[in-house]
Amino acid sequence: MLIAVDAMGGDFAPKEPCEAAILACKKNKNLNLALVGDTEKIKPFLEKADSNVRSRIDIVHAEEVISFDDSPSISIRKKKKSSLVVAFNMVRSGEADGVVSSGSTGAIAAGAVLLLGRIPGIDRPGLGVATPFENRTTLIMDVGGTVHCKPINLYQFALMGSIYMKLFYNVENPSVKLLCNGVEDIKGDEVISAARDMLLASNINYEGYAEGTDIPKGIADVVICDGFTGNALLKFGEGLGELIKRQFKEEFKHHTLPKIGLIFMWPAIRRIMARFEWEKYGGLPFLGVNGSVVKVHGRSKANALFYAINGTANFINNKGVGRIREELERKNGQDGTLC
Amino acid sequence: MLIAVDAMGGDFAPKEPCEAAILACKKNKNLNLALVGDTEKIKPFLEKADSNVRSRIDIVHAEEVISFDDSPSISIRKKKKSSLVVAFNMVRSGEADGVVSSGSTGAIAAGAVLLLGRIPGIDRPGLGVATPFENRTTLIMDVGGTVHCKPINLYQFALMGSIYMKLFYNVENPSVKLLCNGVEDIKGDEVISAARDMLLASNINYEGYAEGTDIPKGIADVVICDGFTGNALLKFGEGLGELIKRQFKEEFKHHTLPKIGLIFMWPAIRRIMARFEWEKYGGLPFLGVNGSVVKVHGRSKANALFYAINGTANFINNKGVGRIREELERKNGQDGTLC
Repeated sequence: MLIAVDAMGGDFAPKEPCEAAILACKKNKNLNLALVGDTEKIKPFLEKADSNVRSRIDIVHAEEVISFDDSPSISIRKKKKSSLVVAFNMVRSGEADGVVSSGSTGAIAAGAVLLLGRIPGIDRPGLGVATPFENRTTLIMDVGGTVHCKPINLYQFALMGSIYMKLFYNVENPSVKLLCNGVEDIKGDEVISAARDMLLASNINYEGYAEGTDIPKGIADVVICDGFTGNALLKFGEGLGELIKRQFKEEFKHHTLPKIGLIFMWPAIRRIMARFEWEKYGGLPFLGVNGSVVKVHGRSKANALFYAINGTANFINNKGVGRIREELERKNGQDGTLC
Repeated sequence: MLIAVDAMGGDFAPKEPCEAAILACKKNKNLNLALVGDTEKIKPFLEKADSNVRSRIDIVHAEEVISFDDSPSISIRKKKKSSLVVAFNMVRSGEADGVVSSGSTGAIAAGAVLLLGRIPGIDRPGLGVATPFENRTTLIMDVGGTVHCKPINLYQFALMGSIYMKLFYNVENPSVKLLCNGVEDIKGDEVISAARDMLLASNINYEGYAEGTDIPKGIADVVICDGFTGNALLKFGEGLGELIKRQFKEEFKHHTLPKIGLIFMWPAIRRIMARFEWEKYGGLPFLGVNGSVVKVHGRSKANALFYAINGTANFINNKGVGRIREELERKNGQDGTLC
């Protein structure tokens, strides 16, 4: 198996992608990686790898980089020598089995659609994130792949999200909720209520609207929303977490009592943190395209990238794309509402 | 001053609105309140009020209730004897100066627009929430008043939000950010980028896009978004807070060490909680209508309602609506982009 890792994507490239590649090859003896990017910039970070690991990491040169400022679809078309385009073309040609990138979500989405193509019947692919909440892992989808959604998009996210949770988390008949500004039937706008009608008419295990408050309760296996809202919500949660951390750090700096308290609390804090360690959840799968594509947070360090490479390997081993395609065809035959 | 309090709105009505009314009149000797709702249900909760307080609380009978399941605009038109409609009509006739309700956001929005009317030039009013973040109070607007927004709506939220922060938080030239799925110019959809262009062309202190992560950093005085996203984001944050609380409670139940730690940590936790006590921020102002309307969270207890009544009194004392109207006219004259 060969996974193409975009060595130039994200805030800490190429250092963190290179370190993640070393870590991944060390832990998984069957893994081969291609670090795609500027050879001269990548090389120094691979020096510390032992020979067995180093022999399974190829550097594939790509002289351009797609930045967060670039227009996604224009840059995919014009920057043919960029690390992301080269990585996608490796999957397209059959040379690689999947792509991992912590580059711009928009560029990854555009590249996946333009260079790998959508699974037949899929209108817009979606970016999901499997997040640990109370007693359950919930896939939130979409979190930035499709900013503006039509009802069919929300419906198809529910379908793909259900398949994903069944395949990768062994959830039988995953429950699906649609994010809304209230749980009452009259909430939402035309897009939301049309999506609800499609879900009710399908054989998806749709259980109604969910409010933002409900998600952390682990209210469903899949929570569906448009990419703009999903993105804002997820990032806001992240920002709140950071705010709380900073507040406690300030307290520890200026007061002794809480510092003593922390010593006693630490085991509990560690247990809670371990329960919600999103980094271990293997990146954000971009579902609905003809290839295993996993996006990683732009600010990710080696550890998160390592788990994303693992998640991609798992996706490929489980023939994720093929099984989603088959399930889609089967469901399409069953309820006739796919497109 | 007379404020009409919807005694039947929210999950804990009429008990909590009644207790909040007693508390508010006890603390503010110049305050008169009208508790609007079912007289027989309200009376028992006022028995414990002393005579001075009781003499300043009127019960205004309303036999109907608008529930969270009712269609907002239909129920405002049809349930003419509902507590919310009666409360709005008291403001409309000049009998009361403002309305406080923890009823359905949609019904409050519809009632305010249909019965009080919009401030001239305002396309859609917005619900704001002033939230304490790092070193700054940020008004997030809209959080559920206008689910689906046009560019003009986002622009006008920025305008009204700026005026609000200037009037009530003494912020000179409040900074405004527009919530987006990235900070780069190419992010967002057509609505977002059209709103950005309007903001750039205005004399509002617009400082660019903000991501969800940025909000808790206190990145701006006003953060603008559509009501669907704002609602989801805020409720998700609330849900995360509850999740963390539950996790720690479980730890304290099963382990002794963290319990000891909590004793030492408690002063720090209390200081942090005091810094972010949203309940004290006086409810959610519904801006853009001809009246002082403040929405309170449906799950609010007496304390949060008490602060909302205080906030409304403050809004009325400061002639909030009139000053927003004047500022709008002035700004309209200055930059000519109001409508």
